[in-house]
Amino acid sequence: MNDKTPIDFWFDFSSPYGYLMSERIDPLAARHGRKVRWRPILLGVIFQATGSQPPVANPDSARARYIVKDFHRSARFMGIPYKPPSRFPLPTQNAARAYYWLHGQDCGQARTFAHAVYRALFVDDRDISAPDTVLDLAAAAGADRAQLAAALTTPELKARLKTECETALAAGVFGSPHVVIDGEAFFGADRLPQIERWLETGGF
Amino acid sequence: MNDKTPIDFWFDFSSPYGYLMSERIDPLAARHGRKVRWRPILLGVIFQATGSQPPVANPDSARARYIVKDFHRSARFMGIPYKPPSRFPLPTQNAARAYYWLHGQDCGQARTFAHAVYRALFVDDRDISAPDTVLDLAAAAGADRAQLAAALTTPELKARLKTECETALAAGVFGSPHVVIDGEAFFGADRLPQIERWLETGGF
Repeated sequence: MNDKTPIDFWFDFSSPYGYLMSERIDPLAARHGRKVRWRPILLGVIFQATGSQPPVANPDSARARYIVKDFHRSARFMGIPYKPPSRFPLPTQNAARAYYWLHGQDCGQARTFAHAVYRALFVDDRDISAPDTVLDLAAAAGADRAQLAAALTTPELKARLKTECETALAAGVFGSPHVVIDGEAFFGADRLPQIERWLETGGF
Repeated sequence: MNDKTPIDFWFDFSSPYGYLMSERIDPLAARHGRKVRWRPILLGVIFQATGSQPPVANPDSARARYIVKDFHRSARFMGIPYKPPSRFPLPTQNAARAYYWLHGQDCGQARTFAHAVYRALFVDDRDISAPDTVLDLAAAAGADRAQLAAALTTPELKARLKTECETALAAGVFGSPHVVIDGEAFFGADRLPQIERWLETGGF
């Protein structure tokens, strides 16, 4: 097993548990000499392909009411700021495409942007589905706003995100967050303690 | 808030995460001066009423394959013996009815029996759906086998289990395990750390 293999972190920018994972996975991996590949995907595509439904599909169900409370309680438990967004869930293809474009320019900028998108949605209640919000956040991370605006609508960038979703499905991803370490999959922010032990021990 | 309020532990005897919770919830509650009410229910009834599906409904799905692995890995993580049962899921109404009958006779016997049922299924791969297995486990816990055998088919005991399932649904239960502390619900064995902090702090 090669210590240097990056960890794959699959997520959707509208996933609250993905946001919680995003605030913890990098420092945890770094403590064990690992890098993390952040790979935004679209849960809509994943759910359609796997024939499943978002956990909050029926907002009046007992499960949905529980999960909405659990998002908030889990954030408090982990000590992570969280404010339930007024628009949820919402489309994230602009944010995901912008991420991949930025990643092609500058990995560090892409990471800064990804954190900013998640915090914009889950702390500042901003509409991250809007191209303008995405461009503002990318510009604040240091990107060229006009270049990114032009890139967002290109077939190449759309194809890139489509390919990432297909790669995720082929890797067995069925939700967000989905973390893969040396072929071992961990689903959900609540698997962080297991991820930590896995990194410490090389598997258990 | 009354410290003495018992914690409700809703579970199905065929639920692997329910089994993991059953091995931890009593000592954790006791450390905080709390008793636990064990309340077996039937997930089939819960899923039908809530319009949801068991997580392993389609055994070939990526989600089901992940969950089956996660049962086992979560048990290893928690240091709890676990052997995947050859028959799973399986009907649990006999075990649940026997539990309530025993509880009417002797709480301690009922608790011993409940642990024995879970371990019979998830450690010794026994068919706990069979009335004979249920009666053997109850007799080993100290119950009168013939009396229980006669009670198992009575309308009163069937009605008791039905009422418990209805009470669970009214309390917002949608899966197993589902733990309720002073009105706050915790779903899944992976919520044990949050349960522990809740008991320590009275809420967070």
